[in-house]
Amino acid sequence: MAAIFISVGNRACRSAPRLLVSSSKGSRITLNSQLLFSEHFVNTTSPVGPGWYSSGTGVRFASRLSGDRTERFRKNILVAAGAAVVAGFAAGLGHFQRAEMASRVVRDTEKESEILEKCKSFMSAPVTDVQALQQRKDEMSTRMEMLIMETQSAFCRALEEVDGGKFRVDQWRRKEGGGGISCVLQDGKVFEKAGVNVSVVYGTLSEDAARQMRSRGKELKGKDGKLPFIAMGVSSVIHPHNPHIPTVHFNYRYFEIEQADGSKYWWFGGGTDLTPVYIDEDDAVHFHSTLKEACDKHQVQYYPDFKKWCDRYFYIRHRGETRGIGGIFFDDLDKPNKEEVFNFVKSCAETVVPCYLPIVRKHLNDSFSADQKNWQQVRRGRYVEFNLVYDRGVKFGLATPGSRIESIMMSLPLTARWEYMHEPSKGSPEAEMLEVLRNPKEWI
Amino acid sequence: MAAIFISVGNRACRSAPRLLVSSSKGSRITLNSQLLFSEHFVNTTSPVGPGWYSSGTGVRFASRLSGDRTERFRKNILVAAGAAVVAGFAAGLGHFQRAEMASRVVRDTEKESEILEKCKSFMSAPVTDVQALQQRKDEMSTRMEMLIMETQSAFCRALEEVDGGKFRVDQWRRKEGGGGISCVLQDGKVFEKAGVNVSVVYGTLSEDAARQMRSRGKELKGKDGKLPFIAMGVSSVIHPHNPHIPTVHFNYRYFEIEQADGSKYWWFGGGTDLTPVYIDEDDAVHFHSTLKEACDKHQVQYYPDFKKWCDRYFYIRHRGETRGIGGIFFDDLDKPNKEEVFNFVKSCAETVVPCYLPIVRKHLNDSFSADQKNWQQVRRGRYVEFNLVYDRGVKFGLATPGSRIESIMMSLPLTARWEYMHEPSKGSPEAEMLEVLRNPKEWI
Repeated sequence: MAAIFISVGNRACRSAPRLLVSSSKGSRITLNSQLLFSEHFVNTTSPVGPGWYSSGTGVRFASRLSGDRTERFRKNILVAAGAAVVAGFAAGLGHFQRAEMASRVVRDTEKESEILEKCKSFMSAPVTDVQALQQRKDEMSTRMEMLIMETQSAFCRALEEVDGGKFRVDQWRRKEGGGGISCVLQDGKVFEKAGVNVSVVYGTLSEDAARQMRSRGKELKGKDGKLPFIAMGVSSVIHPHNPHIPTVHFNYRYFEIEQADGSKYWWFGGGTDLTPVYIDEDDAVHFHSTLKEACDKHQVQYYPDFKKWCDRYFYIRHRGETRGIGGIFFDDLDKPNKEEVFNFVKSCAETVVPCYLPIVRKHLNDSFSADQKNWQQVRRGRYVEFNLVYDRGVKFGLATPGSRIESIMMSLPLTARWEYMHEPSKGSPEAEMLEVLRNPKEWI
Repeated sequence: MAAIFISVGNRACRSAPRLLVSSSKGSRITLNSQLLFSEHFVNTTSPVGPGWYSSGTGVRFASRLSGDRTERFRKNILVAAGAAVVAGFAAGLGHFQRAEMASRVVRDTEKESEILEKCKSFMSAPVTDVQALQQRKDEMSTRMEMLIMETQSAFCRALEEVDGGKFRVDQWRRKEGGGGISCVLQDGKVFEKAGVNVSVVYGTLSEDAARQMRSRGKELKGKDGKLPFIAMGVSSVIHPHNPHIPTVHFNYRYFEIEQADGSKYWWFGGGTDLTPVYIDEDDAVHFHSTLKEACDKHQVQYYPDFKKWCDRYFYIRHRGETRGIGGIFFDDLDKPNKEEVFNFVKSCAETVVPCYLPIVRKHLNDSFSADQKNWQQVRRGRYVEFNLVYDRGVKFGLATPGSRIESIMMSLPLTARWEYMHEPSKGSPEAEMLEVLRNPKEWI
């Protein structure tokens, strides 16, 4: 499920004070790192430095190749960090004189440093201000935003290493609230198109739209029919050139909706699934076992239940085929409690690299014929059919005003093919693949 | 709009007597030409002659290349014709002795011969039995079925002539009622994929589904909530190899729905529209003028109204672009009366070849670069987006049990491409195209 979210919330961070300083050019400079990163969005027509990109579409964004990021990024983070630490002490010391309080400040500072340290390894500054993340470091929305940023970064770097290419990094903002970071590596050595997207968005939803967001369709009561909400997630689809390397998709997401009475509804969703072009039994077993292992640490019923859910969800009804060989898929997960579900989602997110990269490396140098490439292209066509006709994330994104279309369509392959009446010959490896798609298997 | 229909009605033809004769193989042979054509559908596992094809899917069909059809087809039509004429006389002579009656029989026979004569030029036997068409020759459903068959045949032959290739012809039946004839020329010299589809289908609809079928959402009362209906149409999408030859689409259709009180609701819909990859002003003017001329013969308001409707309908909302440079589009047309609307639809259908073929011939030998081919592929991706996300015909087809998926997906190009953040450079011919798609023009 491609993740594009809208959301909102009365986030404390939105009202966090910002230190504004006039620059020599007259444009504002701020110690809020989000603004440091996004000031280029403000004037989309001004000449921006090399590697930066601006567009005339409704969505404002900046982009650069990931190789350019390190120095500029570190500098900005450090400026923000300094300001946050100073602000923390300045605000605290007048009120708290006791040793116990002093030690809490030290502990908090350590945690803040930890957040800053992690931010340095991200593909871009997070959507939420680093300072705000530091202030609300124990809240689930902060912990989840850190997790999705870490997942994006770990996966992108693993793919860059194997491909040799660099991800293009686009930061974008949604005028209705929130934004995201889209990382795309197109036409690389190994990957035809690799997209890894983070979004953290907020806004208000109608009760009807809120009902549609949950697969179980829970009734929620908003103030004057409106529900403030925040939604965030990391979503990725990787289409390799070589037909012996499967396509992988994963998506992990978190939602919070606030009702009229102030009560908050929250849930997690996600999953990882594999779409090979040819069946490789060992790959399938490795992929599913790795997922099962991550699930079993939390609940033995998770893997069997979420494997079935995955086969049901990624089903191209009009073809009578699943999209791939599945994996896990879950939604509306709000039990047994927030902490435990988050830990489960964390395990799943950390499993993405070990699930997929060994399979990529194994087939890196597999040779393939024109016919095998052709079959891959036909399967890519089916991938497009699923994503455009059935995927709830894509539908939701396309129907949402202000969505960033390029981030939604990032999940589509670079190339695809529709052959009239294509049917593999009996007993061929292509027919074997189709058989599995028509009758999902238990791999472990 | 890709046409795939469900329908039904208490069609007289369904109860037309069939002469069944035992063959030496024990399978039935009949003088009903539909069955003669479709006997291959009955046993999908039996070895069938060269050029015939059978599949294990729910839809039974037969296929062959159009070059093979002439002899076999003529023979079957003639057998059916003989039977029909003999049956007509046998039924009539006992009752009518007067000269006037005799002359009516002669006139009827002439009309029947006319139907038979026309059938000989079709790509395949029509979906409805030739005998039944002869018996109900003055009914609108017969006249429309003849028109869509003629349109399919005229267009296919014009394309075959310019391409040099032959259409593959697939007859298919829908177990819920009705069937169709799909003609596809794939990977030809000129055409990457050319599909021309006829369908004549029937069944019952829920009141809710019936409401959705009409774009104006008219309330219809069925018996026990069920509405018998019949729907038929011809639909085509042509994707050429050369990026200087535009894609064309047309679709002309007719619906009849019977309410609980026996009253019948009918309407026509259709349109023809062009999707170039590059703007050629002369082509656009030729295309629109030819359509306007056909419209003006019937109603001067048709062209301006239906041109606007076309731009509105073929709109890729999430991209803020139309699919192409438009043409005409109309639906729910039931005024001023059946005869006049049919004559208008006939004019439109007859305009398909003169609208498109001169443009194909003009650009047949245009050279093109890899970049131009690439831009075509990106535009093909948008074509896929429109068809899978918005097209009402495709949505209706995919949601309808028993639809023939291959005939719906026939409208998709052989190849398509999705490039992340593709934006043509300013002032380029690609940007000029995009400008027109973002701001539809009046061409004449």
